[in-house]
Amino acid sequence: MTDDINPHRSALFTDLYELTMLAAYHAEGMTGTAVFELFFRELPERRNYIIAAGLDDILGYLEHLRFGKADLQWLAELGTFDRDFLDYLASFRFTGDVHAVPEGTVVFANEPMLQVVAPLPEAQLIETYVLNQLHIQSLAASKAARIGRAAGGRPVADFGSRRAHGTDAALKAARASYLAGVAGTSNVLASRLYGIPCLGTMAHSYVQAHDDELAAFDAFTRRFPETTLLVDTYDTLQGVKRVIELARRWGESFGVQAIRLDSGNLRELIPRARTLLDDAGLNPVKIMASGGLDEYQMHELIEAGVPVDGFGIGTELVVPGDAPHVDLSYKLVEYESSPRMKLSAAKTSLPGRKQVFRQTDNGRCVGDTLALHDEYQMGEPLLTRMMSAGARTPDGRWTLDDARRRCARNLDALPPRLHTLEQLPPEDSYPVRISDALEEARGRLVRHLNAGGRRPNV
Amino acid sequence: MTDDINPHRSALFTDLYELTMLAAYHAEGMTGTAVFELFFRELPERRNYIIAAGLDDILGYLEHLRFGKADLQWLAELGTFDRDFLDYLASFRFTGDVHAVPEGTVVFANEPMLQVVAPLPEAQLIETYVLNQLHIQSLAASKAARIGRAAGGRPVADFGSRRAHGTDAALKAARASYLAGVAGTSNVLASRLYGIPCLGTMAHSYVQAHDDELAAFDAFTRRFPETTLLVDTYDTLQGVKRVIELARRWGESFGVQAIRLDSGNLRELIPRARTLLDDAGLNPVKIMASGGLDEYQMHELIEAGVPVDGFGIGTELVVPGDAPHVDLSYKLVEYESSPRMKLSAAKTSLPGRKQVFRQTDNGRCVGDTLALHDEYQMGEPLLTRMMSAGARTPDGRWTLDDARRRCARNLDALPPRLHTLEQLPPEDSYPVRISDALEEARGRLVRHLNAGGRRPNV
Repeated sequence: MTDDINPHRSALFTDLYELTMLAAYHAEGMTGTAVFELFFRELPERRNYIIAAGLDDILGYLEHLRFGKADLQWLAELGTFDRDFLDYLASFRFTGDVHAVPEGTVVFANEPMLQVVAPLPEAQLIETYVLNQLHIQSLAASKAARIGRAAGGRPVADFGSRRAHGTDAALKAARASYLAGVAGTSNVLASRLYGIPCLGTMAHSYVQAHDDELAAFDAFTRRFPETTLLVDTYDTLQGVKRVIELARRWGESFGVQAIRLDSGNLRELIPRARTLLDDAGLNPVKIMASGGLDEYQMHELIEAGVPVDGFGIGTELVVPGDAPHVDLSYKLVEYESSPRMKLSAAKTSLPGRKQVFRQTDNGRCVGDTLALHDEYQMGEPLLTRMMSAGARTPDGRWTLDDARRRCARNLDALPPRLHTLEQLPPEDSYPVRISDALEEARGRLVRHLNAGGRRPNV
Repeated sequence: MTDDINPHRSALFTDLYELTMLAAYHAEGMTGTAVFELFFRELPERRNYIIAAGLDDILGYLEHLRFGKADLQWLAELGTFDRDFLDYLASFRFTGDVHAVPEGTVVFANEPMLQVVAPLPEAQLIETYVLNQLHIQSLAASKAARIGRAAGGRPVADFGSRRAHGTDAALKAARASYLAGVAGTSNVLASRLYGIPCLGTMAHSYVQAHDDELAAFDAFTRRFPETTLLVDTYDTLQGVKRVIELARRWGESFGVQAIRLDSGNLRELIPRARTLLDDAGLNPVKIMASGGLDEYQMHELIEAGVPVDGFGIGTELVVPGDAPHVDLSYKLVEYESSPRMKLSAAKTSLPGRKQVFRQTDNGRCVGDTLALHDEYQMGEPLLTRMMSAGARTPDGRWTLDDARRRCARNLDALPPRLHTLEQLPPEDSYPVRISDALEEARGRLVRHLNAGGRRPNV
């Protein structure tokens, strides 16, 4: 059944409670303007920042959000909703405004990455999709930035499609990791969809299918002379020697660009492979490493002076084992101009519509201020109007390469201490100040709610 | 761009190296029959079995696998492939056989879950999609089975769509966790696509949008009298008292089925909520727990005698933090009737086409034998022909409910010790024996390859 429905264009990609709440809002006439903000409560362990990604899909979703005839028919058959509500859904459109930090922007805990200002039911319905897309893409971009830093300028290729959680994660991780600086992806469809360079060479199965390794190398380079040869199917250093034999055979016309090692003790094998290649006059042939590597192993190899020229990273890029999810929330912060918040244990939030101001000094970020949206604070406001009355603004259109450049600038502007792969001590974390006015607004609302108060006074 | 291409029907959802290898195979005339097997090398920590899921999507993909005109046009523009190969792709179809363990079957390390017998290029191209789908669905089903066991018969709802890695993972985790015994999903599209019960009630934002909590409860129950009320937006026990006040107001017509607690110390709060409800004569009102729970916390609550009646599980169900990925492999084990294997350090595999035999005693599984496919061994053979010459066989068609029943039977038949949530000591793990003939075949091939041998003798 997945053949005929695109979840990125389906209004049914939502949680049932969004629809039951919508039905209640509709019946109650609660269609006043709501402000929802999306943020994460805290940084995962050993993450010192998050890169915002996924906004382009969200704006595309909001532009096209409709309940189709078949959707409405199916909802009618559920028996949960009355005709009046279903008629309302038939004409449902997203008519609100979206403010967001541009894709590729570095953000910190409690800073809104996205702010939706829309009639309450519209802002409510989209919660599930909005969280789903910003979560996976920001997660992948953030991990890719760490992996890129660990590579120290060497190219990294995304090889993760087979281990990503489903097809969408594979495509989105390819997109997000390119945004964060990865050189390209092995996923052909992602390359076509997003214009990302497509990378890849040969698998062990190709070598195994041939009578022997040299025959496989020979046949492959006939077709793809400038390829990368995978040398570890049987014995890595023997594999390297076969590449050297191949070079002798081909002479001047030998064009192999690189070899790839996908297993074994890379710290030992790569230097030995380098020596073998160099001794054979194959200094231009590069060495690429893959095989379950993460940023720590990459960093160790490079720190140890191992002559590695590039990396192929799969699982760890697309399913970060150390932080497979982030505690991302989409919260109502204002309804009909009055601030709202939750008091649930350990889950209080900052009420009211906000803005994030980033202060810089000589091009370097020095601290952010989280403030009410209509305050004046020093620094650059990060939340930008991307959509107005349901249509993208000029700021709401950009290319993936724009976002990639922005991300690189953002990473370069970070205080260098944030680039460590380790957990920073709290006193070294990036300073995010809460403005006095926002702090006061929170205090006022907490006192009011604790007093059992009804609608807060603003 | 995600609007017009369905990755589940796109031949481009593959790694570039599959296509370069195909081009080389095509040029070399290497279209002999290959056997690829998909298995995981080892169980993740604290997993004592894996539930096979995802096959239905794979068979659907293989049935529809085509290179469309736009795909071919785009590939031509890449400049990597010649006209002859592109013409070959234009008529590409999957014409092979697929043997697999039925969805819902419990499997162990090194047991093939899927076996593809097809012309080499066809078996090669599909690697990326096949791994991608079996990985996420088996991962989610396996976690859901643990969560279901921890719930001890109490219903569990999948609330994970917002934290799943992309839209596909959200839908597939809903499907796979239902297959493994979860009661239903909050994802409306998954419910529509797969016929899974759709569950859900209200969010904190609904309560916050109203002037006060009681007004919110009152308005919601007017529309949905038999709902579940979320009581922890401000103060959990105050929230429970407001439900009791609501019950007094509504009298006989009060129909609220349950309350939900989504935060705080549930071990303390749930018994107190139960007492408040019971003292008010609301014994039939059930208590549901949610809020970042995993199977360990569920188990602790139940062991402590906390009167919880059901669970909503999100993040941990769809992105298992303790095992976010499994080391799944798709390996060439035979080409043109001769066995193949890899010798890469720590990654040797079992050569040759295989079968898995499961022995039972009084309906209880007692051990498996991994054997060559044409051996006779005691027990039930698990790999079944699901697709023949590119078309589904009668065994290749089943409903999700069939798979759900099979999974329940499989889980019930496991040795009870495997249901622990903890890591089993190696001596207690499920016994998987390798047949003498398979062991001999491996030994023969290792000696042959180590001797630098060319094509192995069989």
